[in-house]
Amino acid sequence: DFNLAAIYVSDAQYNRNVYFDTSPQAVRLYMLYNHWALKVLLYFFMLVNLSLAIFEDPAVYALPIWLTLVDMIIYGALKAANYYGVRWSRVLRPLLLVNVTEGRQLRRAFRSIRNALPQIFYVFLLFMFSILIFALMALKLLGKGLTNINGTPYFTSYLEIMFDLYVLVTTANSPDVMPAYNANFFFAVFFIVYILINTYIFMSVFLAVVYNNYKKYLKEEVRQLVRAKRHKMVRAFGVLQEQREEGGEPVVTQASWNQLVRLVQPNLSNAHRELLWSVSDDKNQGAIKVAFVQLADLLNIEIITIKSRPHPLQSLCPSLYQSAPSKLLCKLVQHAFVMVYDLIILVNAVFIGLDEENPMIANSEWVFLALYILEILLKLYVFEPRVFFSKHSFWNFDTIIVISALIATTVNSVMKSSHFSSRQILDIVFILRVLRLIRVVDSIKFRTIINTLIRIGPAILTFGQLIIVVYYIFAMVGMELFKRKVTFYEQSSTDPAKAYCGNPLLNGTDFAKLNYCRNNFNDVVSSFILLVELTVVNQWHLSSGFATVTHISARIFFVLFHIIVVIVILIFVAFVLEAFFVEYSVDKSDLQTSLERKIEELELAVAETMEDNLVNAMETIDNDLGGSQSAKPNLPSLMFKIASKDALLQRIFEADLDPEDFAENDDPEARGNENFANPLFSHA
Amino acid sequence: DFNLAAIYVSDAQYNRNVYFDTSPQAVRLYMLYNHWALKVLLYFFMLVNLSLAIFEDPAVYALPIWLTLVDMIIYGALKAANYYGVRWSRVLRPLLLVNVTEGRQLRRAFRSIRNALPQIFYVFLLFMFSILIFALMALKLLGKGLTNINGTPYFTSYLEIMFDLYVLVTTANSPDVMPAYNANFFFAVFFIVYILINTYIFMSVFLAVVYNNYKKYLKEEVRQLVRAKRHKMVRAFGVLQEQREEGGEPVVTQASWNQLVRLVQPNLSNAHRELLWSVSDDKNQGAIKVAFVQLADLLNIEIITIKSRPHPLQSLCPSLYQSAPSKLLCKLVQHAFVMVYDLIILVNAVFIGLDEENPMIANSEWVFLALYILEILLKLYVFEPRVFFSKHSFWNFDTIIVISALIATTVNSVMKSSHFSSRQILDIVFILRVLRLIRVVDSIKFRTIINTLIRIGPAILTFGQLIIVVYYIFAMVGMELFKRKVTFYEQSSTDPAKAYCGNPLLNGTDFAKLNYCRNNFNDVVSSFILLVELTVVNQWHLSSGFATVTHISARIFFVLFHIIVVIVILIFVAFVLEAFFVEYSVDKSDLQTSLERKIEELELAVAETMEDNLVNAMETIDNDLGGSQSAKPNLPSLMFKIASKDALLQRIFEADLDPEDFAENDDPEARGNENFANPLFSHA
Repeated sequence: DFNLAAIYVSDAQYNRNVYFDTSPQAVRLYMLYNHWALKVLLYFFMLVNLSLAIFEDPAVYALPIWLTLVDMIIYGALKAANYYGVRWSRVLRPLLLVNVTEGRQLRRAFRSIRNALPQIFYVFLLFMFSILIFALMALKLLGKGLTNINGTPYFTSYLEIMFDLYVLVTTANSPDVMPAYNANFFFAVFFIVYILINTYIFMSVFLAVVYNNYKKYLKEEVRQLVRAKRHKMVRAFGVLQEQREEGGEPVVTQASWNQLVRLVQPNLSNAHRELLWSVSDDKNQGAIKVAFVQLADLLNIEIITIKSRPHPLQSLCPSLYQSAPSKLLCKLVQHAFVMVYDLIILVNAVFIGLDEENPMIANSEWVFLALYILEILLKLYVFEPRVFFSKHSFWNFDTIIVISALIATTVNSVMKSSHFSSRQILDIVFILRVLRLIRVVDSIKFRTIINTLIRIGPAILTFGQLIIVVYYIFAMVGMELFKRKVTFYEQSSTDPAKAYCGNPLLNGTDFAKLNYCRNNFNDVVSSFILLVELTVVNQWHLSSGFATVTHISARIFFVLFHIIVVIVILIFVAFVLEAFFVEYSVDKSDLQTSLERKIEELELAVAETMEDNLVNAMETIDNDLGGSQSAKPNLPSLMFKIASKDALLQRIFEADLDPEDFAENDDPEARGNENFANPLFSHA
Repeated sequence: DFNLAAIYVSDAQYNRNVYFDTSPQAVRLYMLYNHWALKVLLYFFMLVNLSLAIFEDPAVYALPIWLTLVDMIIYGALKAANYYGVRWSRVLRPLLLVNVTEGRQLRRAFRSIRNALPQIFYVFLLFMFSILIFALMALKLLGKGLTNINGTPYFTSYLEIMFDLYVLVTTANSPDVMPAYNANFFFAVFFIVYILINTYIFMSVFLAVVYNNYKKYLKEEVRQLVRAKRHKMVRAFGVLQEQREEGGEPVVTQASWNQLVRLVQPNLSNAHRELLWSVSDDKNQGAIKVAFVQLADLLNIEIITIKSRPHPLQSLCPSLYQSAPSKLLCKLVQHAFVMVYDLIILVNAVFIGLDEENPMIANSEWVFLALYILEILLKLYVFEPRVFFSKHSFWNFDTIIVISALIATTVNSVMKSSHFSSRQILDIVFILRVLRLIRVVDSIKFRTIINTLIRIGPAILTFGQLIIVVYYIFAMVGMELFKRKVTFYEQSSTDPAKAYCGNPLLNGTDFAKLNYCRNNFNDVVSSFILLVELTVVNQWHLSSGFATVTHISARIFFVLFHIIVVIVILIFVAFVLEAFFVEYSVDKSDLQTSLERKIEELELAVAETMEDNLVNAMETIDNDLGGSQSAKPNLPSLMFKIASKDALLQRIFEADLDPEDFAENDDPEARGNENFANPLFSHA
């Protein structure tokens, strides 16, 4: 029974919505299904499936001949059976990512986009109409004997103009405005009006409509999620409930609660668990009822437990560690250190920029490394090691970088002394050196921005997956359409075909002139890089190039890709905006507030002023403990600090959600089944 | 005294905040100052001042020699007196636009941006730091023997790299990524990471921080505005108050209220005024107190008064107009017309796209014109003319276009018959013809989007002014720095200097090759167009060109312009977003709701279903009146419809404003002066 309750809680915690049988055997199987090893396996096979594209024709790494033979036989057999040779399954592969249980975030995003499509379509129609009108004007007003720089006629074909004007909206300089502007001053007005309407006004409207609709449907999804979470918790309550006295209300006792939490999250410390219980059982009754429902949300709030204990050296040789010079050293490290090392980093930055062939500068690297390691050792002397290496400290990153740099620099100089220098290791050493400079940013001014970025990270990852699905599909289609149409020749090659990327059709085109041969669909990696270029830099030369080597209709592929990617990016931008606004404006959730209040009540809080950096916080604590021990002798040895805020999505929409979504008996259809006021419903 | 009260109300209505003396003479002078003619004069002189740039060196139109002489003498005198010759005053000219009373919207926007600058600066610092780090990496990793297409070394100078990477953020393809990509596959990763961080993440964060801060300060401004409006209305109340009975509360009677409103808005119809009074005096007491404060907001709500009267033909020859064929015609026009004419417009669109040299197609224009005029005549037959030509009807636009097209086409054919064809008139005829097609968009699906756009129009205009101020300043500075460095030669010119824009330094550069000579700072119009290009199409070639003809530091001018314009555009985009969200989500204000309720109470409302188009609405009403007269014989002959919503800014922040901003005695310092509960304060 505890297993069943634990599954309900864990499903509520991670917003899983899988229907399962509640027999003990099925529950055990479901727990196995949710085991992390199986999940890793699932993702591993998904990765294998997706990365098949690396070995399939057109391949990055051609497979050994016998494997190719097997492939050929299967392919040949299919062909013999009159199957058409395009491998549609490859295009559909990334949909696996969407359709597994773990893809629910992604699925939600997809559903929201799909639901928003009709509204987006109306704006798009209006936008296309505007382009049509302007194209008509351009055809009649500008298409009169003007020529491009290369002498081709300017603005003559209607379809061509429409494509050019579409490209102009992306702020790429196509069509080249100059021929019209040179011919008549007032034609510039035409383009200015066009860009004002279609780039600025329409794109803003597009962003507004896309995001507004996306948000609307996402809100509905989040509402359903909150409801489903409540129902699961109510079910878990139904499993664990007991009546302490005859005729009394059904409750969950602390003992069963403890056992449940231990099952759901085995690695939770006892102190942490007791804290959560004391928040839930606010009146200290030894049993809870309504507060039980909070459990999933409570478990989702990350809490850092800081054990404040004396420095090991203090216990080993207290007289030395408490001596005057040692105390002075501690004070110096605690107060003057950050500024001194910021200065050292800046000097380091200048040295990195200088010529590294100079032996003096090359050796200076050792000096800087020694300084950084000295810093780590001094900090270790002053601060308690477990705090220094704690999971949530930014300094950790710094320490890793410094130690990696030490190793890489040593390896490099050993290799150098044996007259063998590797460009790769040199580059790694260099990147490590530069990364060290990031420390300068670790100041309070920037911390709010960076923290917000870190917090919206998971949401950004969902968009990353969305982008990968879109990219993969277009890469597969692109490879079928354009493989081996354009060839890249190494720079050392002397083949005359190099000048036109191995395709005579490209002779003399911009594509070949600009040396774009490497932008091709000849393998999956090249395809992805090409799609990135299309996303970012508006490389419409590419679309012209591929239209030249195949057919003018190839442009449809590129325009379609652009439209889809723009919608995803618009949603991404709007989402980041919203997340920032929420970070800036929305207060903590009620639950978090009550948790914080409890922590403060118990006098276990890390002081607010110490919040921005845990090691800094520890400095102050150490200071209190070590420096002037008399001040706060009763400081508890265990402290809590809330590390993360609630789930971003829920917080974004919390203000908008109706109160009944959080109310007890909200869902009429569920009310019959599980009335929380009297949860008689029992799961066999 | 009524004059004083009227000024207070009118100041509250238009959010004017000018301190003036309350003596009757000063009040008269202040009214004169607020007269529309003086305002037109002010704007006229501002326009003259700004357009001086057209005639000043470098000039679009050179002035006659004697005027130039006067200019020379003044200039020479200044120079002789050892004044440095750069005309700083020109740069500061657009600030006039900001500093007049009427520029308060613009001033508010400027103030908000200025206040938001510190926060923006921190993000910018972080962004610059990121570029610095990446530039350092690029220098060391990529700057090793690679060359650009034109053979120049790739990524060697640190400053050059920083500039190139800054340009890359704008999604312009500079630096050309291909040399690095061609040299090593993995260098593409460097650029992808760079763009991901600096273009997507940073630009989103930038947008979020810019807008969040801008909004924060704007909210404070709006709050002060609401407060100031209240105070003005309280003062006006203090002027007009009287006690109806001994010891009773001070009130404003309907008589004084009527006189006041007649003074404030003389062109308000009696019916409209009575409606406003009945909203204010809800309990029909003949005098108001608290509700008086709403007056300014009430006057700002635009209300359309529709007088529903029978068609003139019906009074002239009722038997004919009521006959069966006439009724059938009316029904046809009312129901089948829109679809038939949408079809005609589509056919027209196809004909416009065809070759106009063909005489049959050229003559088809007459057929279409005749069809459109027939439509107007038929509508005039069916609908009451005053409704048809009413101010708020979309058909008005259509009628103007059709009649202009008729005139232009007639003029054109008259000229043609006299063997004199003008390209200009042909173009105008053509544009009028194309504009006619916009009618297709006039359907309900698009109407919400277009209505929102129209409503946020005034706010967009504020940004337009902001952009003009920025453009003007940069155009003036640019003209001082770069005038006559680049020369444009007409296309017919055979001067060899044409190949390098008249400046040998440009020989062989991209700038000259791409035929960019017309993009110069040789007069104010060219400068503006150049700045538009910089804003939109990321024409970094231009910056390189002007750096070539002057000094590398000229790039600072272009980068600075880009940064400022990006901030303004980011705010613009965020503002449009916010406006759309408000349109979609925020309900009507309380005041508007009570006004609507009152209109409905009085049974004077135009039915909701008729809202989307007034003429359509009238169709139904006419139908009721004419077609089946028995159905609603008592339909009132006067109807109201609320046309505009409240001021956008106030609505955006209304939800965020504290209730005390709308409370009666909010401002402690004002409370002493004018206690609304007992307004004893009297203005001499």
